[in-house]
Amino acid sequence: MIACLLKPLDKIQHTIRRKRADALLVTQPENRRYLSGYTATDLSIAESSGLLLVPRLGSPLLLTDSRYQLQAEQEATGCEVVLVQDSWLGTLGKLMARLSIGKLAFESHYMLYDTALKLMRMSQKQGVELIPTSGMIEKLRVRKSPQEIQKIQESVLLNESIFKEVLAHLKPGRSEREVAREIEATMMRRGAEAPAFSTIVAAGPNAASPHAVPTDRFIKRGETIIIDMGLRLDGYCSDMTRTVVLGTPDKHTVKIIRLVRQAQSAALKTIKAGILARDADRAAREVISRAGYGRNFGHGLGHGVGLAVHEPPSLNRKRRNKLQPGMVVTVEPGIYIPGWGGVRLENMVVVEERGYTMLNRDTTFLDL
Amino acid sequence: MIACLLKPLDKIQHTIRRKRADALLVTQPENRRYLSGYTATDLSIAESSGLLLVPRLGSPLLLTDSRYQLQAEQEATGCEVVLVQDSWLGTLGKLMARLSIGKLAFESHYMLYDTALKLMRMSQKQGVELIPTSGMIEKLRVRKSPQEIQKIQESVLLNESIFKEVLAHLKPGRSEREVAREIEATMMRRGAEAPAFSTIVAAGPNAASPHAVPTDRFIKRGETIIIDMGLRLDGYCSDMTRTVVLGTPDKHTVKIIRLVRQAQSAALKTIKAGILARDADRAAREVISRAGYGRNFGHGLGHGVGLAVHEPPSLNRKRRNKLQPGMVVTVEPGIYIPGWGGVRLENMVVVEERGYTMLNRDTTFLDL
Repeated sequence: MIACLLKPLDKIQHTIRRKRADALLVTQPENRRYLSGYTATDLSIAESSGLLLVPRLGSPLLLTDSRYQLQAEQEATGCEVVLVQDSWLGTLGKLMARLSIGKLAFESHYMLYDTALKLMRMSQKQGVELIPTSGMIEKLRVRKSPQEIQKIQESVLLNESIFKEVLAHLKPGRSEREVAREIEATMMRRGAEAPAFSTIVAAGPNAASPHAVPTDRFIKRGETIIIDMGLRLDGYCSDMTRTVVLGTPDKHTVKIIRLVRQAQSAALKTIKAGILARDADRAAREVISRAGYGRNFGHGLGHGVGLAVHEPPSLNRKRRNKLQPGMVVTVEPGIYIPGWGGVRLENMVVVEERGYTMLNRDTTFLDL
Repeated sequence: MIACLLKPLDKIQHTIRRKRADALLVTQPENRRYLSGYTATDLSIAESSGLLLVPRLGSPLLLTDSRYQLQAEQEATGCEVVLVQDSWLGTLGKLMARLSIGKLAFESHYMLYDTALKLMRMSQKQGVELIPTSGMIEKLRVRKSPQEIQKIQESVLLNESIFKEVLAHLKPGRSEREVAREIEATMMRRGAEAPAFSTIVAAGPNAASPHAVPTDRFIKRGETIIIDMGLRLDGYCSDMTRTVVLGTPDKHTVKIIRLVRQAQSAALKTIKAGILARDADRAAREVISRAGYGRNFGHGLGHGVGLAVHEPPSLNRKRRNKLQPGMVVTVEPGIYIPGWGGVRLENMVVVEERGYTMLNRDTTFLDL
């Protein structure tokens, strides 16, 4: 449990004061968990299991309803749990009056348009000024603490162990969908909170789609099989892609797999604090482009991973942001050839001052 | 596959014309699936796998990127698939110019505030007027077609079969979390797309929380165990709650279970097209209140189920909306007693002109 980590909360309250706001309303579920330790997930953005009101000083308040009260009190030990009466807007209004909040910052990147309009009408009536903010907590979340890195490491290792378990049963004649389901069933059996995203198993021509949805097509010998899987453990995500071949791959397949490995190695060599995100992307892209497959690598090199499976920073050809120590990012070049298939390799690393720490141990892709 | 069902699309295009709009931008993922047949899910509201632009006449356009292109073309057979270039906003702008769209309706209940502002700036530049709309497609989705009811029925039956399979292994000394994971693993193994929501297994005092998160606490003989589970099959959700007891329940437990059953029966007796949602709620609530447990039934009677596990209509004490034939709703009264535990029973029914059709076959709660 994270339970109202002091440091991030202190930093956020500092920012709230710097913005001359009296409080910040946190609606984004991972931000809420990060600051409060409250682990409930939201069924959808329209069905929140709690709002966190962070005042400029003092303890945050967690607004939730009777369905979640027990959990909120047990987990968000540094927060005051406030039960929503008729509507969260009404309860929030009363709280703002009680706390004499005159300026309320809100997460404009994680509030529905209709909801924001309702909040604005209510605030106007109460004479409260609203301050839209975006990414304030996400900015803190990009640099992981040693405790967070430990949790991500455990998530990565469990994910790899499940990959190996399922790989042992992989054989021709099983469908992509069957294998994807086995992976997710194994995740649940082995103690993951949930899959971090819909598992991708894409074989043969289907592997030419980077985000292929598993189909009922049977896996065949000799074709590339992309397996992209990740899980959530104690809140933290893992994300790994391997490309495997049953039987002996032909020369062309070996060539493409080696090329993607070389691109990954080239990108990894660049990674350290201070480099631009786009430079890591470029290193991988150059290897692939020089071999004539530049147009077959249509996505970015990677993304941050933490409480969310996709979070800042993005590593792609446009990003000029600098990598910082403690960032956890994926490095995942790929080559996709319509009609033939595809190859992607994805590892996760921690950015360090003078390089990186590899979180993956699995070396399936080095077997060739 | 639904593949651009003609009738809902016709109805929506009629509404678009009635609102004097030239097109509707569909961002809500279940609405997108309902109208287009495209089954991709969104990782989050900030990471859409596609936007559906429905013109007042003619075929819808599905905007997506290269990662989803193949899937979009295979599934959304009645739509023109348009690849997003640099940004979806830029691509949308070009499309609006190409289609001479002067008035664009958008789903203001499913667009982030920041995104809506960006859309507004872009539209203003192009001289396009924006029309916020809310729930236009959801209104259609409340009445299910026979094909949809068939799919929901299959989802319910698979869910029940998994419940029975897991129930056979339920025994004292297993933890709530272990049982919840086994349920979700079995769902994946038996062919569900995914759990429809995080499975609830709550025993003893934990069952006093209606939305309890499974803990590591061991299940004991004699206490009530609430199991609330649902899955998604071919897009459609199921949602069922059973309360079971290992060994012989004591008199008080039997009394509470019988009371909840009576409340459920009382609610079911009222259900038919034309009654007010709140009247069904009241029928259940009266049974529970008369026995002195009114304060222990803190949530509403039920909700609609379809492509989303929670969708309109809501059945609670405030709702004056009339039930309509073809609505699929849950009927789930419960009694929660702090320190002791809880009991909830949840079935799904189809509202008919002169009553209802029960979708559940499982009668575990009649064993007493």
